[in-house]
Amino acid sequence: MTTDSAPRIGRIPIRHLAPQQPEGLWPAKAYAGEVVPFSATVFREGHDVIGVDLELTSPDGTTTVVPFPAPGKGIDVWETTARVTETGLWSWRVRAYSDDWATWLRAADIKINAGIDVDLMFGLGIDLIDRARAGTRKSARTASLAVLAAAFADTSGDPAGRIALAHSAAVTDAIAANRPESLVTYSANIPLRVERERAGYGAWYEFFPRSEGAVRAANGTVTSGTFATAKGRLAALAKDGFDVVYLPPIHPIGTTNRKGPNNTLTASATDPGSPWAIGSAAGGHDAIHPDLGTEKDFADFVATARSLGLEVALDLALQCSPDHPWVTEHPEWFTTLPDGTIAYAENPPKKYQDIYPLNFDNDYEGLRAEVLRIVELWISRGVSIFRVDNPHTKPVHFWEWLIGTVNAKHPDVVFLAEAFTRPAMMHTLAAVGFQQSYTYFTWRNQKWEIAEYLTEVSRDTAAFFRPNFFVNTPDILTEYLQFGGVPAYKIRAALAAMSAPTWGMYAGFELIENIARPGSEENIDNEKYEYKFRDFDAARKSGRSIAPYIARLNEIRRGHPALRQLRNLRLQHVDDDAILAFSKFLPAHQSDTKRPDGVIVVVNTDPHAVRESMIRLNMELFGLPNGTTFEVTELITGTTHTWGNDNFIRVDSFTEPAHIYAVTYPPRTTA
Amino acid sequence: MTTDSAPRIGRIPIRHLAPQQPEGLWPAKAYAGEVVPFSATVFREGHDVIGVDLELTSPDGTTTVVPFPAPGKGIDVWETTARVTETGLWSWRVRAYSDDWATWLRAADIKINAGIDVDLMFGLGIDLIDRARAGTRKSARTASLAVLAAAFADTSGDPAGRIALAHSAAVTDAIAANRPESLVTYSANIPLRVERERAGYGAWYEFFPRSEGAVRAANGTVTSGTFATAKGRLAALAKDGFDVVYLPPIHPIGTTNRKGPNNTLTASATDPGSPWAIGSAAGGHDAIHPDLGTEKDFADFVATARSLGLEVALDLALQCSPDHPWVTEHPEWFTTLPDGTIAYAENPPKKYQDIYPLNFDNDYEGLRAEVLRIVELWISRGVSIFRVDNPHTKPVHFWEWLIGTVNAKHPDVVFLAEAFTRPAMMHTLAAVGFQQSYTYFTWRNQKWEIAEYLTEVSRDTAAFFRPNFFVNTPDILTEYLQFGGVPAYKIRAALAAMSAPTWGMYAGFELIENIARPGSEENIDNEKYEYKFRDFDAARKSGRSIAPYIARLNEIRRGHPALRQLRNLRLQHVDDDAILAFSKFLPAHQSDTKRPDGVIVVVNTDPHAVRESMIRLNMELFGLPNGTTFEVTELITGTTHTWGNDNFIRVDSFTEPAHIYAVTYPPRTTA
Repeated sequence: MTTDSAPRIGRIPIRHLAPQQPEGLWPAKAYAGEVVPFSATVFREGHDVIGVDLELTSPDGTTTVVPFPAPGKGIDVWETTARVTETGLWSWRVRAYSDDWATWLRAADIKINAGIDVDLMFGLGIDLIDRARAGTRKSARTASLAVLAAAFADTSGDPAGRIALAHSAAVTDAIAANRPESLVTYSANIPLRVERERAGYGAWYEFFPRSEGAVRAANGTVTSGTFATAKGRLAALAKDGFDVVYLPPIHPIGTTNRKGPNNTLTASATDPGSPWAIGSAAGGHDAIHPDLGTEKDFADFVATARSLGLEVALDLALQCSPDHPWVTEHPEWFTTLPDGTIAYAENPPKKYQDIYPLNFDNDYEGLRAEVLRIVELWISRGVSIFRVDNPHTKPVHFWEWLIGTVNAKHPDVVFLAEAFTRPAMMHTLAAVGFQQSYTYFTWRNQKWEIAEYLTEVSRDTAAFFRPNFFVNTPDILTEYLQFGGVPAYKIRAALAAMSAPTWGMYAGFELIENIARPGSEENIDNEKYEYKFRDFDAARKSGRSIAPYIARLNEIRRGHPALRQLRNLRLQHVDDDAILAFSKFLPAHQSDTKRPDGVIVVVNTDPHAVRESMIRLNMELFGLPNGTTFEVTELITGTTHTWGNDNFIRVDSFTEPAHIYAVTYPPRTTA
Repeated sequence: MTTDSAPRIGRIPIRHLAPQQPEGLWPAKAYAGEVVPFSATVFREGHDVIGVDLELTSPDGTTTVVPFPAPGKGIDVWETTARVTETGLWSWRVRAYSDDWATWLRAADIKINAGIDVDLMFGLGIDLIDRARAGTRKSARTASLAVLAAAFADTSGDPAGRIALAHSAAVTDAIAANRPESLVTYSANIPLRVERERAGYGAWYEFFPRSEGAVRAANGTVTSGTFATAKGRLAALAKDGFDVVYLPPIHPIGTTNRKGPNNTLTASATDPGSPWAIGSAAGGHDAIHPDLGTEKDFADFVATARSLGLEVALDLALQCSPDHPWVTEHPEWFTTLPDGTIAYAENPPKKYQDIYPLNFDNDYEGLRAEVLRIVELWISRGVSIFRVDNPHTKPVHFWEWLIGTVNAKHPDVVFLAEAFTRPAMMHTLAAVGFQQSYTYFTWRNQKWEIAEYLTEVSRDTAAFFRPNFFVNTPDILTEYLQFGGVPAYKIRAALAAMSAPTWGMYAGFELIENIARPGSEENIDNEKYEYKFRDFDAARKSGRSIAPYIARLNEIRRGHPALRQLRNLRLQHVDDDAILAFSKFLPAHQSDTKRPDGVIVVVNTDPHAVRESMIRLNMELFGLPNGTTFEVTELITGTTHTWGNDNFIRVDSFTEPAHIYAVTYPPRTTA
C-alpha cells in the first residue's frame, strides 16, 4: 500500500465479502452438504440499477452462477445461500453489472405513463432489445423480443399498453437469458475450504473401553474391559443413532504418582489410573494398554465400528506420565530444571506430579516429527478423528503445522479441539485448522444466554468455528444437571441435538448419573480414575434410561436435513422468559429430499416447571408466508396441530420439556 | 491460501491489529498531532506471562517503541495510544515476547512464600538475573541486579525477605532495561497514512463571495460582490477563529434554463443563477465568473486569506450547465440521446434542465485528465482544499484515482466529500481517499441519537472516515433549527465545535436565519439563486448575532488541545434524557502544552427547557482517580465548581444551553 494511484476499488464497488475468516489468513470453512450464506456490499454511484451474481467454483473447476436477490430499498448488502457438496478448496467471487434494461424500464414506466419523452424512451428500449437479441441464444425466447420491438416502434399504439408489454413473463425471461449489461466488475477470488460431512455433522458418544465388559469379582478384584468386550457396546450405539465413538486415551498408563479414586494422590495397586497419564514401560503414545488388548484387538474394534457405520475417534493428549519412554529417550522434549529433574505440571502452589508437560521450544522439529508419526500411525490403524486434549496448552503454530500436514495427505481426518479457555485462543485454534471445537454450551442454561450463544456460533463465528455441543464429559457435570433431574437431561440433550449439527455425550448421561464429587462439577467416583460397571440394558428395561429419548433425537436428526445445518438456525419469539424456540429450514432445492424441510424446536429451559406461553413465529424464516396457517407434527409425541403466526404452547418439563415440530408444506411449495 | 502447512500464525499469536481499514485495501488514516489508539489480540498457550510492544516507524525511519500496558485478567486485547506528528506513510507492528522474568517472579512469590521448591526457584532467578546482566548496558542499573543475585544465593537469609527484594524499584527498573525474554514474535507491518493537521482539525466558514459587498441600488438593481469586496469579510472570520473559508463554485454560470429565486424554473435577466450550474460562454471549471473579478483578484483574495491564517477551500462540482464549453468541445463527456440531444439530469419524472451530468464511461481517460488539469490549475492559484459536490454521483474509482494522483504530487491537498447517501457509499468514498466527509450530524438532534452517532464516528469508523460537522449549509436548514430559536443554534454550534475537531457553518447561521421555504429544509430566498445583503456588524452590535458565541467556541478549541482530537471522545452519564455529556482528554505527554488537558461538555439538547439532573462522571476517562474531587472552570461563563463523580447540573437553554468545563489538574498530574 503506497501512494500509487491505481485504484483498488472496481468500477462498481464490491466490498466486505463473506464468508471469510477475520484477517483472511486462512480460508473460510464449510462441510460437504452445508448451505453456506454468502454476502457482499455492492453499490454504485447515482441511481442506475445494478445486478449481482455469485460465481462459485468447485474443486473440479465447475462454476455455478447464483444470482443474488436484490436487497430491500436502501440496503447495499446482497445476501444469498448456496449448497456446497464436493470436498476440497472451492473459490468464489462476486460479479456486479449495471442492469441497463432494469434502469431503462424503471424510467420508461414512469415517463411514458406521464407522457414525457415517449418516443425517446421507446427508442432507447429498442436499442436495448437489439442488444439483447444480438446475444440471445437461438431459441424461442427471441420471439417475444421481436414482438416487443415491433410494438415499441409502432407509434400508432397506446403508449401505456406498449410499455406494459415489457413486463410480460416471456419478455422478462428473454431479457434474463441475455441481459443487456455494462460496467461488469469482478471481486477478487475468495477461497472456501469444504471438508467432509463428519467435520460438521454427527452424533458423538464417549466411553471408556476398560469399563465396557469390566468384571468385578466377589472378592472385589476387577478384570478390565477390553476392545474385545467393548465392541459389544457398539451395536447399541449405532442403533441409537450415533456416528462417532470417542475413546479416551488407550495407551499404557504411568504408575509413578498415579492418581487414585476421586483424584486422590495415592493409588492402590489395583487402581487403573487416569488414561490421560500416558506412558509406562509398556510404551507411550504409539502403544496400546495391555489390559485393553492387542493391535489386532483394536483393529477388530475399529472394523466392527465401521461395519455398523460408526467412526472411531481417539484422544490425542500430548503429555506424559513420568514413566513415558520419551522421558528417558528424549528428555529434550521436556523442561529440565537446574537440579536435573524434569518439571512436573503445576499451577503454583499446586503440583500435578503424575504429569510431565511437553516443552515444544527445545527441539520443536524433533518433537513435532514424532507427533506426526504417532498421528499417522493411528490413522493407519483406522482412526479418522482425533479429539485433542487441551490444545490451548501447546503452541498454536504447532497445531497449524500438524493439522495442515496431516490434512494435506489425509484430507478426511478431523481434529476436535478440547480447549475451554478464552475466546481468542478458542477461535484461533479453530481458525488455524481444528475442524471442531468443544464449547461453553454446557454452561449456557438460561434462555437468554442460550439464545445469545446460539446466535454467536451459528452466525458470528460459523465461517471458522464449528461447535461440538457435548452435553457432559468426564470433566463436566454442571449444577444444572446435578439438580435438574431427568428433565434437565432431556432438555440439554434436545437443545444440543437440535441446535448443533454436531453434538455428543459421555456414557452415563443416559443413566442420569448426576451425583457430583462435593464442591466440584465432576461426577463422584469419576471414571477417569476407576472402572464403571453400568448395566445399560437393565436401565433401559426398567425405564431408568433416557437412551430411547436420545435415540429418537438422533433419528429425528437423520430424518430432517435442516437439522444437519448450523447456519440456518433462527431464533423465534416466545413471550415466556424460560421457553426458548428456534427454527431450522432448508428449501427444496437445497434439501436431499427435494422437499422443503422445516423444524421448529421449543424447549422449556426451566426443568422444574410447567410453562404456558405464546410463540410468535416469523413464518418466512421457515419458508411460509406470514398470515397463513400450516400443519405441524410434534415428533416426540406424534401430535399434530394447525398453527399460524401466534400459537399457544404448553411445555411441561415433567413429561416432555422439548417439543420438536416438523412443518408440513403444501405439495407445491418450492420455497 | 492452499493446503501448504507453513503456519501463518506466529509462535505467540498476534491478531486483529487496529487501526486498519476494513479489508486492508488502503492504509488507515490519521492526521498530524492526532493521538491514535492501537490494539491487538495477543495471547499464548499455557499460563506464562507475555509482554507486548508497539513499534511505530515514522516516514523518516525513526522507530518508537511503546509498551502496551497489560490488559485486565482474562482479556487478550492489548490497547495503547501514540501521537503521530510527521506527515506521510508510517508503519507499525506489534512485538510480543514471553516475559520470562515476570513468569518466574509470579511463581517464585507463591512458591517461596509457601516454602515450596525454595532453592530451585532462587536458582532459576539467578539464571534470569545472569541473562539480564549479560545484556544490560553498562550503567548503575546493573548494581541492583548483582545485589539481588547475591541475596538469592545467600541461603542463610530469610526466603521471604530475599524474594521481596525482587520487587524493589531499582530491580524493576534494571529488568525493564534488559528484560530476559524469549519466543519473540512480530506481526506484519501495518501502514498508517498521516495527513496534515487541517485534514482532521479546523473550523470552516462558507460564504458566497458575490453577496459580500453586493449593493442593491434604490431602483432595485444589484451590483455583485467581488473578490475585492469579499476579502473585506476575511479579517472578521479570522478574528472569530475560523481556519478555512469555503467558496461555492466561482465559475461562470449558465443562462440556459437558469433557476430563478426559490428554485423557480424561470429566471429574470437580473437573477444571478446558481453557482453550481457551471459554465457559460465566459468559460467553464477553469474560469472565474466575470462578476467576481479577475484571476489577479482571486489571487489577492487568497493572499489576504493566507495573511490572516485562513485557507481557501473551493467547490469542485463536476457538472455543467448547457452553456459549458465542454458541451460543444467534448460531447463525449456527456450522454447523447438517440435524438442527438444531451441528456439532462433527471429523477423521473422530474427533470433538471439547467444541468447536464457528466458521463464518465464514454471517454474516461480524457475526462479524468481534464479534471486533473482543472484541480492542478486551482492548486496553482492557491487553493489547498476542495469541497467536492455530490461525489456519490460519480464513479468511486474516479475519486480514488484523482485524489491518489493529486496527493502523490501535492500531499497537503485536502478533499471533503459532500455525499449525503447510504453508509456503504459514504464510507467507501472516505476509504478510497477523501480526507473529510459531510455527515448526518445535522439530523441527529435527540440525545440518544447524538450519543450513538458520536460513538460511531469517534470509534467505529475513525480509522478512515473523518467527519466535518457542518451545522447548516445552503441546502440544510433542519426543523430543529427552524423551530428552536437562538438556543437551537447555540446548542448545535457547541455540539459540533466541541465534539468534532472539524466543524463548519454557512453564513447566516450566526444571524439565526431560520425561515425555511415552506415544505423544505432549505432557507427561504435561498442564496443559491440570489444575492444576500447581510449586515454582520450591525447584527453584532445589536446583540442579534451569535458570532461572539461562535468566536468563543473557536477560541476554546484553540486553547484546549484535547478538543483537536476526535478519537478521545468519551460519553459521560447524565440521568436526564435530554442532557448529553461527553469528555475529551489528552495526557500531558501527548499534549502540546505538556500539561494534561481535560474538557467536559454538557449540552441540553432540548432548546425549549431548563433541565436539572445529575452528571455521573467516570473520572478515569479524563485522567483523574474516581472518588476524589477536582475543580472545573466553565469556559462560557467563567464560573468555577468543585466536582466529584456525581454532580448536580442545571442547564438553561434560554441562557446557556451548553456548559463547557475545563478540568483543573493538580500540579504534579502526569496522567
